[in-house]
Amino acid sequence: MSEDKIKQPTSIIIFGATGDLAKRKLFPAFYNLFIDDRLPEQFNIIALGRAENTDENFRNHIKENLENFSRKKVTSKEWEDFQKHITYFQHQLDEENSYINLNQKLESYDQDYGTRGNRLFYLSIAPDFVSVISGHIKKTSIASDPATDRIIIEKPFGHDKKSAIELNDLLSQTFEEEQIYRIDHYLGKETVQNILAFRFGNSIFEPLWNHRHIESVQITVAEEVGVESRASFYEQTGALRDMIQNHLLQILCMVAMEAPESLESGEIRDRKVDVLKSIRRISSDKVDHYAVRGQYGESKIDGVESKGYRQEEGIAKDSNTETFAAIKFYLDNERWQDVPFYVRTGKKMKEKHSYITIQFRPLPHSTFSDGPSQLSANRLIINIQPSMDIRLQFMSKKPGLSLDLQPVEMVFNDFACQENSPEAYETLLLEALSGDLTLFMRSDQVEEAWDVVKTIQETWESTKDPSFPNYEAGSWGPKDSNALVERQGHKWV
Amino acid sequence: MSEDKIKQPTSIIIFGATGDLAKRKLFPAFYNLFIDDRLPEQFNIIALGRAENTDENFRNHIKENLENFSRKKVTSKEWEDFQKHITYFQHQLDEENSYINLNQKLESYDQDYGTRGNRLFYLSIAPDFVSVISGHIKKTSIASDPATDRIIIEKPFGHDKKSAIELNDLLSQTFEEEQIYRIDHYLGKETVQNILAFRFGNSIFEPLWNHRHIESVQITVAEEVGVESRASFYEQTGALRDMIQNHLLQILCMVAMEAPESLESGEIRDRKVDVLKSIRRISSDKVDHYAVRGQYGESKIDGVESKGYRQEEGIAKDSNTETFAAIKFYLDNERWQDVPFYVRTGKKMKEKHSYITIQFRPLPHSTFSDGPSQLSANRLIINIQPSMDIRLQFMSKKPGLSLDLQPVEMVFNDFACQENSPEAYETLLLEALSGDLTLFMRSDQVEEAWDVVKTIQETWESTKDPSFPNYEAGSWGPKDSNALVERQGHKWV
Repeated sequence: MSEDKIKQPTSIIIFGATGDLAKRKLFPAFYNLFIDDRLPEQFNIIALGRAENTDENFRNHIKENLENFSRKKVTSKEWEDFQKHITYFQHQLDEENSYINLNQKLESYDQDYGTRGNRLFYLSIAPDFVSVISGHIKKTSIASDPATDRIIIEKPFGHDKKSAIELNDLLSQTFEEEQIYRIDHYLGKETVQNILAFRFGNSIFEPLWNHRHIESVQITVAEEVGVESRASFYEQTGALRDMIQNHLLQILCMVAMEAPESLESGEIRDRKVDVLKSIRRISSDKVDHYAVRGQYGESKIDGVESKGYRQEEGIAKDSNTETFAAIKFYLDNERWQDVPFYVRTGKKMKEKHSYITIQFRPLPHSTFSDGPSQLSANRLIINIQPSMDIRLQFMSKKPGLSLDLQPVEMVFNDFACQENSPEAYETLLLEALSGDLTLFMRSDQVEEAWDVVKTIQETWESTKDPSFPNYEAGSWGPKDSNALVERQGHKWV
Repeated sequence: MSEDKIKQPTSIIIFGATGDLAKRKLFPAFYNLFIDDRLPEQFNIIALGRAENTDENFRNHIKENLENFSRKKVTSKEWEDFQKHITYFQHQLDEENSYINLNQKLESYDQDYGTRGNRLFYLSIAPDFVSVISGHIKKTSIASDPATDRIIIEKPFGHDKKSAIELNDLLSQTFEEEQIYRIDHYLGKETVQNILAFRFGNSIFEPLWNHRHIESVQITVAEEVGVESRASFYEQTGALRDMIQNHLLQILCMVAMEAPESLESGEIRDRKVDVLKSIRRISSDKVDHYAVRGQYGESKIDGVESKGYRQEEGIAKDSNTETFAAIKFYLDNERWQDVPFYVRTGKKMKEKHSYITIQFRPLPHSTFSDGPSQLSANRLIINIQPSMDIRLQFMSKKPGLSLDLQPVEMVFNDFACQENSPEAYETLLLEALSGDLTLFMRSDQVEEAWDVVKTIQETWESTKDPSFPNYEAGSWGPKDSNALVERQGHKWV
């Protein structure tokens, strides 16, 4: 992506502009890009909503929310400049006339621009509406130029492999693949992007980055929150689909991929698909061996009663939906043969913490009086959020008169300076505006990722887990999650 | 070395107990070992001096100096306990009677101990006296038990290979090799000892620790001071003999040695000798290509006139002694083929700083828009003194909207907690009391190290350097020092 300011005038059309994502993430991201002078000289944000509203009203609503959600402080001077670019536009998703009117609006902007501007459609809506929106966009030809018109869509990209293929087919009737920006906001995170820099910008890590030196890899995305307002969606989805199929597998790809020749998007996406293809597929009778599901029950957290999942509003009293999943993946390729990749994610866990652990192999032989098993094997921890740092754990001389060893850490935490660290959505929106697909998911990535989890997904759907609820809110998940790694002499760290 | 308290009663005999080293290093080290409860229950320090003195007088002199030089605070309670163990004993180095009297003193202690105590002789005297002391010790049989009697000697161990062999031969007439503790205080430093822990207590560094991944190694021991009170000694010695032959080559051995099977002293000393043997010997016509000498001239440092070496008291006006030396060594072995080891040391340099730089090779290919040459190659810096830390320099994503890279550092600096870090002399004295030879130099190490510098030494002695003085006090040495490394596309860091 170029550091240059984007030059092409651009119209940004947000479907679902009155929704939660727009409020919390999209408008704050656009605002911060604006005050960082990263948006085009000429741009308009057309906020689509079902209800009648005035620009003024809508802008005030955005401003109030910016004050809560903007990374940088909102100043009246900058807000005055920014708000002029926002227009509210009443629009019914399922009415062709709405799209015809929208097109007229866009054409009027093009006249102002003095050129056909770029058009960026952001679908911040429930997946059910993708089909109808896509159909109308095609019919009214408002995104007919592959060179200038782009669509950003949010996960879920289908709910299984079959529906993902259908969704991709549907989108391909309106858009070329290179117009479609499937967003996985984890890929916009500074610490996740830095995996590429860390691995391929240095000569000393790659020689160690394989089965000869790495014993296991762990990826944890732990949430402290429960289902919150997403109960009805979550009840149909579960941790496997909501988190593993996308975020955790994407992080796994960043850790495991071969070195790309360049940062060219096709090249990087090819290398990621290679990883997904290499993941060992398992038969349904092996699911219990490779995967653990969990559902949180009632408990007290810090003395306060915490509801179990089945007690949440909108959740079935006998729900079989997993709020926790841990899976052991193997990559059948030269680099990673026999190295387990343990991934886990869950709601209502002990703490909010996303991180990657590279566990190196122990010393084959110890020079020291401590045997190899008494020396802590090296470990690299990449903290993604909320802490953003890299920690290398190694053995060092214990200060003192004897040559005794102790585990210590080297820490790199420059990312901790939040002021300089853009939000994931800023990065991703800017990439989309610039036409760089690298950080977005190609159709084959999505489909391959669904294929990776297919057997587990089908097995879990077709069999009730009688142990549910099987972990306490505020814990690190069910006991079987520990057993999964301990079976191989490992442990979650 | 065992963590256990040394059990054997011990008599410690210090030759030259009124000298500078005893005052600054030895008594403070014994005092700190004492308050850390690391000395035997029964011990006596017999301080030998030429002049008449009382115990009380001498003890007061020690106490005053302790207050300046002790790492831990001197409390009256602990001093009261400690000072009882110190006896002043008038002694003439060259009079046999003195040794007979000393022996009677030691035997009286043995009676107190109820057993023949260990005897540790510390020769804190000019090297010229080693012969006479050693002869008298032999004649009076006061160190005749190889199992209990040890001698610590300070460098210089000769002034060239021939005299080192002679000295070793001389000592061997009185002592077995395993009784002789040749001290190089650099080997007692926490940060130097930690090189072993760092390299061999971890599985991730050794795979990188060779010519495939390391481009060059640099060892710098820079002193800010000039010759101070050592002018007449230094004028006969120079940087090559005073520093390179011992401290710098010893550090080089720690960095370059193969993994020892254990910490057993013979094993470690064997691996170090292997390194010295592998260092490429050069012919005298190549000396200018591999080595650079320097001598500081007058200059202003921070606006204050600073004398040149030739202006120091006791230095010849046309002195040819080098106060700076930089040498490029090659190790002809499988691990280090073609990797230059640059070492340099000097007086009156820019700052006091001893450190090791492991410069890794650049990336063969860059994934990023920056070419390999624009990315800083990885570097590991081991700071020995005065800062005591380990820094790993690597490339990381620059926080911000683009995937741009910047060099950053991970730092480990637990050693900075000085309270826990013993002085080198504490470590070394305790090792000698415990009978562990690992951190001391065996005769073949000393001789081999002299052999390494032999050609350079002879060439420099036999040819005047007409450029002297060739560097300013307060600089990083002569220009040719930079040329030495720049010729190979490297630079001092």
